[in-house]
Amino acid sequence: MVGTAALRALIEDLLVACACPRDLAEAAAEVFLEAELRGIGVQGIDYLPYLIANLRAGNIDPAGRPRIVKESVASALVDGGNGLGQPAALLASELVARKAHAAGAATVGITRSQDIFMIGYYADRIARAGCVGIVCTSGGPLVHAHGGIKRVLSTNPIAFGVPSDTRDPIVFDMATSALSNARIRQAAYHGEQVPPGSGVDADGRPSTDAATIRKGAISPLAGYKGFGLSLCVAMLSGPLTGSEFGSALAGAIVGERAGSQGHFMIAISPASFGDEAAFRAAVSAYVDEVKSSRTAPGAGEIRVPGQRAFAERARRSSGGIPVLDATWAIITDLAAELAVTMPAR
Amino acid sequence: MVGTAALRALIEDLLVACACPRDLAEAAAEVFLEAELRGIGVQGIDYLPYLIANLRAGNIDPAGRPRIVKESVASALVDGGNGLGQPAALLASELVARKAHAAGAATVGITRSQDIFMIGYYADRIARAGCVGIVCTSGGPLVHAHGGIKRVLSTNPIAFGVPSDTRDPIVFDMATSALSNARIRQAAYHGEQVPPGSGVDADGRPSTDAATIRKGAISPLAGYKGFGLSLCVAMLSGPLTGSEFGSALAGAIVGERAGSQGHFMIAISPASFGDEAAFRAAVSAYVDEVKSSRTAPGAGEIRVPGQRAFAERARRSSGGIPVLDATWAIITDLAAELAVTMPAR
Repeated sequence: MVGTAALRALIEDLLVACACPRDLAEAAAEVFLEAELRGIGVQGIDYLPYLIANLRAGNIDPAGRPRIVKESVASALVDGGNGLGQPAALLASELVARKAHAAGAATVGITRSQDIFMIGYYADRIARAGCVGIVCTSGGPLVHAHGGIKRVLSTNPIAFGVPSDTRDPIVFDMATSALSNARIRQAAYHGEQVPPGSGVDADGRPSTDAATIRKGAISPLAGYKGFGLSLCVAMLSGPLTGSEFGSALAGAIVGERAGSQGHFMIAISPASFGDEAAFRAAVSAYVDEVKSSRTAPGAGEIRVPGQRAFAERARRSSGGIPVLDATWAIITDLAAELAVTMPAR
Repeated sequence: MVGTAALRALIEDLLVACACPRDLAEAAAEVFLEAELRGIGVQGIDYLPYLIANLRAGNIDPAGRPRIVKESVASALVDGGNGLGQPAALLASELVARKAHAAGAATVGITRSQDIFMIGYYADRIARAGCVGIVCTSGGPLVHAHGGIKRVLSTNPIAFGVPSDTRDPIVFDMATSALSNARIRQAAYHGEQVPPGSGVDADGRPSTDAATIRKGAISPLAGYKGFGLSLCVAMLSGPLTGSEFGSALAGAIVGERAGSQGHFMIAISPASFGDEAAFRAAVSAYVDEVKSSRTAPGAGEIRVPGQRAFAERARRSSGGIPVLDATWAIITDLAAELAVTMPAR
């Protein structure tokens, strides 16, 4: 177990040691720490070595700072300055909610960016700012088209944040692929099998071996539907924001070079349609109806999106964060190289 | 085969005979005809007897006319007047694109509405107006929660329209359930089996018999992911627009009474992020990359969403529309009751 304050400081110190200004390191640490608090380790410090490798290789500008380069009443484009993705995404989520409160709804795109990691967190931020939030992103090609073999799509996730009154927001964050890249990567590391339909080998034959799929391609979620959804998310994140897409981002995902990743956010002010309190009450009432509906034989509780993560967050905020030995060992080596002191574990 | 002009006139005449003003009947006929032209018969005249039954029962106000009841720079709420859904949705799709061009992006909600049918058509209209469009809707409960049995969600579809330069727009329209209600209904009519995972019987046991699922519930697409997506679509369409949701809409789906259905649209102006022509060119370039990627063993062409429907539309526009005997017989009976002349078939 590592305490949250100690883990936050460690992430910040490592990034500062890679020439990131303190405020940008703080933003990145916030998003990594939230992933760890919510028990979404695949978006957490597991990615830190990858990020640091990219910073040290010059693929990410440590001092790259997001700035608004185009703006209208209900939209803005943020240039990520090829820096850390999280500061750009935090800026964008704050901006899109503010604009939505003023105009009724708003969209913000991000270009020249790096990975922004747990997109559900930005949707959550938009919801906590009082709006319904939708966030999507793209990245390097990992997923084949429906009927295809070649990696032409990212796992292209989409997330929603919906404020309610009596509960945490609904926070739903899904890859449009059968499995996320992080899940395939972890399964390959542990030599695990994944469910049928998860991916194909390099010749397009279906496989359930994670390591084999890593050499082939991940499949879209549920065939044609996941493919269609993925393509639309890709168009919003890539072409719409003027960012790179498809095979152009191939090098970026393995850290060979910088890539101009794009991200896209929507915020909708409930007050622009009616009474905000009535909306929040209706969300809670509907969640109650869904959660209290009759459960299937053998099924436990009906959980709504975000519920498990927020329960975990409450536990870990006081109890600390468990970190895998393998991850801790890698980070300990990095800290030694960067002359950063490790906290107790 | 029925000619398009004759079929359009028939739909209009039937609705006018049910006391709908000519302009509202024209709007409804346009959307039904487009479904038939695109080969999406499950959203076409198959629904006409259901709509007419609701008009004659007084569940839908034939003269109910949509009007804007709340408006801000980047949003509007349309009151459907409990009339035909299509005129309200056509108004909203035009309005949301116009607002997006002015403000950068916009959202429009519809409340006190009936079914708007093929939502991909409105996304297509938004795309043809130069914006990226997102449309979602809800309706009567048909789908159980992940881990549940009871119908608490509609099939809650979501559609995207993305303009390109060298092709028709990308038009993607998916139910967030394993199968659409129309598909289950058709399969039950023909006594067909549906794929595993499509639904459960009244006691929550998985079933592949469409008629059994109609007595139980349809399952969410791909388990937890489809459930989460469905719940978010439901919140946008129902609570956000101040419309009914969940079991409150139970009577509406079987035509027992009027229900206040809600719908929700987003439009994004590409010009608010960068050069519009460059965006369209990038969309086409990405579609080309996806379509020309290596195909899986045994797979044919890689099709992007909308491609098949637009090819069918070109064929049927000149060659006419095939109508099933059973559908034609039902409509012939209705026409006789309403003193409407049937065209040649």
